[in-house]
Amino acid sequence: MARVTVSGMDQHVRRPRAERARHLADGLRQQITDGAFADGTLPDERELGRRFGASRNAVRDALALLREEGLITRRRGIGTTVLLPKYGHGLDRLAGLAEELAGRGTVTNEVRVAAEVSVLPAAVATRLEVPAGAGGVYVERLRWLDGLPLSLDTSWLTAGVGRAVLAGDLRERDVFGLIEEAAGVPLGRAEVAVHAVSADPGTARLLGIEPGAAVFALERLTRSADGRPVDVESIRIRADRMTLRATLRRGGPPTT
Amino acid sequence: MARVTVSGMDQHVRRPRAERARHLADGLRQQITDGAFADGTLPDERELGRRFGASRNAVRDALALLREEGLITRRRGIGTTVLLPKYGHGLDRLAGLAEELAGRGTVTNEVRVAAEVSVLPAAVATRLEVPAGAGGVYVERLRWLDGLPLSLDTSWLTAGVGRAVLAGDLRERDVFGLIEEAAGVPLGRAEVAVHAVSADPGTARLLGIEPGAAVFALERLTRSADGRPVDVESIRIRADRMTLRATLRRGGPPTT
Repeated sequence: MARVTVSGMDQHVRRPRAERARHLADGLRQQITDGAFADGTLPDERELGRRFGASRNAVRDALALLREEGLITRRRGIGTTVLLPKYGHGLDRLAGLAEELAGRGTVTNEVRVAAEVSVLPAAVATRLEVPAGAGGVYVERLRWLDGLPLSLDTSWLTAGVGRAVLAGDLRERDVFGLIEEAAGVPLGRAEVAVHAVSADPGTARLLGIEPGAAVFALERLTRSADGRPVDVESIRIRADRMTLRATLRRGGPPTT
Repeated sequence: MARVTVSGMDQHVRRPRAERARHLADGLRQQITDGAFADGTLPDERELGRRFGASRNAVRDALALLREEGLITRRRGIGTTVLLPKYGHGLDRLAGLAEELAGRGTVTNEVRVAAEVSVLPAAVATRLEVPAGAGGVYVERLRWLDGLPLSLDTSWLTAGVGRAVLAGDLRERDVFGLIEEAAGVPLGRAEVAVHAVSADPGTARLLGIEPGAAVFALERLTRSADGRPVDVESIRIRADRMTLRATLRRGGPPTT
């Protein structure tokens, strides 16, 4: 174990250059995501080096990593600019995308499928706690934020709730809003599992990214206020456009 | 907008094969992550097709996607097996890795750096709310779970807390535990931002994955119970070994 006294991020004794670049990229990503560069333009390499106590080489390597991630673009004569604003989506409370981004961006939905299904897939029926063979509703939407694809959302809904959702305005509204308003079923809680995966070619094409790019894959089971499962979703989110945020508290989750 | 009545996942009228495979992969990933295949062996293609109402071709394509993700392996004569158990890490409360996985797996830590730094990087000092030029402590650990790399954790700590942590058992303990016990500073809450990125070559080598594989990048700022920032972390987690989980409630986060 090294116990050395070092000064600044770049002077870690014998730290490989790749690691210094990673540290710097982490710091820069965090500042970009927090909106530290309001006009979308990053300072030049010399100034970034000064702020992070890093060499020009380390700065250049870090910017290359962030360009790989699709976070920034670098053009001769123009400099380094943030390619896309990266939006934060809270993992603190249950909210639909449009609700969550209200006032920060314009969400529109391309409805790809909205249909009753006469028999839900067995695995979906189990999660929805309906009998094998029960019917339901399937909705698949490509969601656009400020004119660019953001996520591909697929929902399996129980039959009653689903039919009311189908009758609602799926182009303009979150499914959560439709469940509560069109179906009259207040929502309670949702269990979410967040995966990071490489985009398969089909998903990449729909989302407008390179195949293999990192995307979030969310699996979400949403329940009504009285605890019944109503909506099983699989969601693919472009990771270059979205950060998931949470505030965690020490000492256990809040009790319901 | 298509409004069709379909039966089962595979009979979506005119759905491209790639999308059927993605649906099926989502369902299977969820079952694998939930531990549905206790002995780690998946049923054969015919049986999976029956359970999900899908064709053999769709099953084969879905298994190919999951193999790409590093979740399963397929061997002639042996069948399809889960490559690694995928652990859930809760986003509901603030916990260290070893704490979180207690009883489910053995965490060991390879301490790569544990050092006082005479001057914290400016961006870190700002986040820790200490004056520019202040010193602190840097800890970098590669964390192993059941003998395989799981995550690369880097922490910047304020000087007083950090020195106590340096004196603690960094090989065996979570940094959170050391902050509370060795430094005597109870923790309060943390703000977490979760990114999904492609692993850079250096990180990939340390984590034992292919460069470009999807990994979680967590940025976490942890505060003491009285609200002072004490620990700024950047964490890279193998996404083939870890799922992040949360339970979300409708109607706003709990008030502190």
